[in-house]
Amino acid sequence: MQKYSTILLVGIIVVLAAVLAGVLVFQKNQPAQGRAFEPLVEVKAMEPDSSVWGKNFPNQYDGLQKTATNNIDTTYGGSSAFSWLERDPRQKILFAGYPFSKDYNDDRGHANALEDVRATKRLNLNDEDPKHTPATCYSCKSSNNPGLWTDMGMAAYDAMTFNEMTPNINNAIGCANCHEAETMRLIATNPALIEGLEAQGKDWTTFSRQEMRTVVCANCHVEYYFAGPDKYLTFPWAKGTQIDQIISYYNEIGFKDWEYPDAGTPMLKAQHPEYEFFTAGSTHYNAGVSCADCHMPYVSDGAAKYSSHDVHSPLINPEQACGQCHTDVEYVVRRVNTIQDQVANTKIATEDAIIDAINAIKAAAANPNSDAALLDQARQLHREAQYMWDFLSAENSTGFHNPEYALKICADATNLARQAQMLAAQAANDPSLLKTGTYYAPAQ
Amino acid sequence: MQKYSTILLVGIIVVLAAVLAGVLVFQKNQPAQGRAFEPLVEVKAMEPDSSVWGKNFPNQYDGLQKTATNNIDTTYGGSSAFSWLERDPRQKILFAGYPFSKDYNDDRGHANALEDVRATKRLNLNDEDPKHTPATCYSCKSSNNPGLWTDMGMAAYDAMTFNEMTPNINNAIGCANCHEAETMRLIATNPALIEGLEAQGKDWTTFSRQEMRTVVCANCHVEYYFAGPDKYLTFPWAKGTQIDQIISYYNEIGFKDWEYPDAGTPMLKAQHPEYEFFTAGSTHYNAGVSCADCHMPYVSDGAAKYSSHDVHSPLINPEQACGQCHTDVEYVVRRVNTIQDQVANTKIATEDAIIDAINAIKAAAANPNSDAALLDQARQLHREAQYMWDFLSAENSTGFHNPEYALKICADATNLARQAQMLAAQAANDPSLLKTGTYYAPAQ
Repeated sequence: MQKYSTILLVGIIVVLAAVLAGVLVFQKNQPAQGRAFEPLVEVKAMEPDSSVWGKNFPNQYDGLQKTATNNIDTTYGGSSAFSWLERDPRQKILFAGYPFSKDYNDDRGHANALEDVRATKRLNLNDEDPKHTPATCYSCKSSNNPGLWTDMGMAAYDAMTFNEMTPNINNAIGCANCHEAETMRLIATNPALIEGLEAQGKDWTTFSRQEMRTVVCANCHVEYYFAGPDKYLTFPWAKGTQIDQIISYYNEIGFKDWEYPDAGTPMLKAQHPEYEFFTAGSTHYNAGVSCADCHMPYVSDGAAKYSSHDVHSPLINPEQACGQCHTDVEYVVRRVNTIQDQVANTKIATEDAIIDAINAIKAAAANPNSDAALLDQARQLHREAQYMWDFLSAENSTGFHNPEYALKICADATNLARQAQMLAAQAANDPSLLKTGTYYAPAQ
Repeated sequence: MQKYSTILLVGIIVVLAAVLAGVLVFQKNQPAQGRAFEPLVEVKAMEPDSSVWGKNFPNQYDGLQKTATNNIDTTYGGSSAFSWLERDPRQKILFAGYPFSKDYNDDRGHANALEDVRATKRLNLNDEDPKHTPATCYSCKSSNNPGLWTDMGMAAYDAMTFNEMTPNINNAIGCANCHEAETMRLIATNPALIEGLEAQGKDWTTFSRQEMRTVVCANCHVEYYFAGPDKYLTFPWAKGTQIDQIISYYNEIGFKDWEYPDAGTPMLKAQHPEYEFFTAGSTHYNAGVSCADCHMPYVSDGAAKYSSHDVHSPLINPEQACGQCHTDVEYVVRRVNTIQDQVANTKIATEDAIIDAINAIKAAAANPNSDAALLDQARQLHREAQYMWDFLSAENSTGFHNPEYALKICADATNLARQAQMLAAQAANDPSLLKTGTYYAPAQ
């Protein structure tokens, strides 16, 4: 009897030891979420290769990899590289004289950023003299950047040409663009973001984690320009991030991206000001919602809960994205559709008004008797109207990120465009310049 | 011992009987809410005197009475009779030639409707010949109307003059305007509402109670016009209740409220189209929220829960009004303020554009060499632009009932107003008509 007791006791001890060992091994293999943790592999600071980080965070890395192929479109946007110039040929006219009139495709997912920037016809990389394309164009396309900016400084980086920089860049957007390797906390990595916040007296290191779940997106999803001959990446935020403050900033420094052909208007191109648009008093931002809450919703895989890194439109997965807060997701999606329809239609009316203004200004500019002062006033209003339209149009949500702001911008831009047309007619003293509906579809 | 038992038993029976009697009396005195009930007093069908109904529904009647003095203002509206012409003198110009340029005060509470319609200078009741003011102007001002419409028919009612009808009217808005006395159910009482719905193939008797909590407000809070020489009250809904459908309706029948002095534009005056505005795809309406949910929230008085009949802006009691659904009322109120600020500012820009158009059209009309066809096109756009602005401006929510619709209307109206100005300049072949900012504050 005692013999069996001993065997039983030993058996129990063995089983318990095995279970304990199993638990320890399991814990060792479980990456902690947002806490100090014991990594499987050490990741060096600003490691550009996301697959290294992925050993510690396989779910998040899986999501990032999915962005290579998550090319589903929504009604007005999505993740395929459809051509804006084909979908809305008015934009060929609006961007005439600027590379965006040659090639303007919608953004694909993060993992394609590097391939797409190298493929765009906008950069003229095969020109005889490609020097005019600066390395700055790589700023938002690669996880090599945080390391490069730290090692060489952003000024030296931006002063190089795109082709000179190419050998240093071998990773698309990845972990290092938003995370600190040692702690995994969210950080501002783009010096232009840090400086843009500082110009407003803001220090990102004082922000809450929830605020950083929006601010890290501003490493790239912002309005910017290349300052000076060395193309220094700069966010025009010194007066604030509202559209009128940005226009005032550009006017004060006399910046232009290009001059509109035959009209002579000093034009501005808006980039992708999602951050400025969303944070300008939108209902979601004001309610404390971050970019990541909708675009990187919490998902689960077995027992693991994590933030999806397969970043795309919430309209692709509304149950996960909207359903975190909203109980009636079907209703919410209908609401988004209603808003986007309204904005899309109103935006086209604004484009028509701007094109009418452009045609009037071109005619007035061609008239040697035109009043130069009035013509310059017309150009100024054209510049501002088109920038306002572009700020809304280039922003990736068809107005949804801030619906009232979107429609107010349409109202204001249309008003300015019509006044630009009227000033051009006054400059040329020619009422025939007041025709409306002068848009024509350019040959494809 | 048995003696005491008998006394105790009798005592218990007496106490129980007293309690039972008390309960029965108490129940008798408690009006049921939305259920069949045993009324304290019989209320005859379409009883115009709300105090009679008030015997059965004292809480609701108390609320109605409070609307006599609930004259609290919000930032942009409220329940005092402030002068729109003083607050926004542009409206004196916009309504020139029409009674609204003489007297245009904000609405007070329901209980003041009769006093206010008799006091307004718009009706010219002391003119030598007051016949041009029809009885139709009483349509939304009195609980006598359901009975009068039933007894005499709306056509005969509307064919009388205002002064002829006065002896029949002695109650302001009250219970009979929305309730059926026998059942207390919500009903359409205004024949124009019933006909306006029928014109769209809709039968209000098939509507749910929740829908009726919006539709009864449409007995009055709608766009309407007086059709034909006998001023037959008509809702312009045959093509639908969206703004473009209403404009199309008016254009098709060639209706005008007045002609703009010196411009010759056939103008339309919008009334108070809260119903059309709110139901045109607003987020609250689409989510199933009714007018009453916000303007007549459920409140309690002791153990009684009832719908407040002290109808006014939800901004006066947001905890009760918004707090029925929203948990963070402070946030919601800030959101309303943001939206109303955006709409109010954009609306003023639209007014400026319309006034510029008016001044250009007046100048072109005064020029005998103007092209008549172009001038008429300018007038048509002025007519539509101003109606769109007025539809938004006269609607009592500074855009909040449907924010995106409000701002889209501003964008569209401004666009049309600027084009009207441009057409006038083309008609007169005179670029000097293209001046902007031609608004001036008229002498008070």
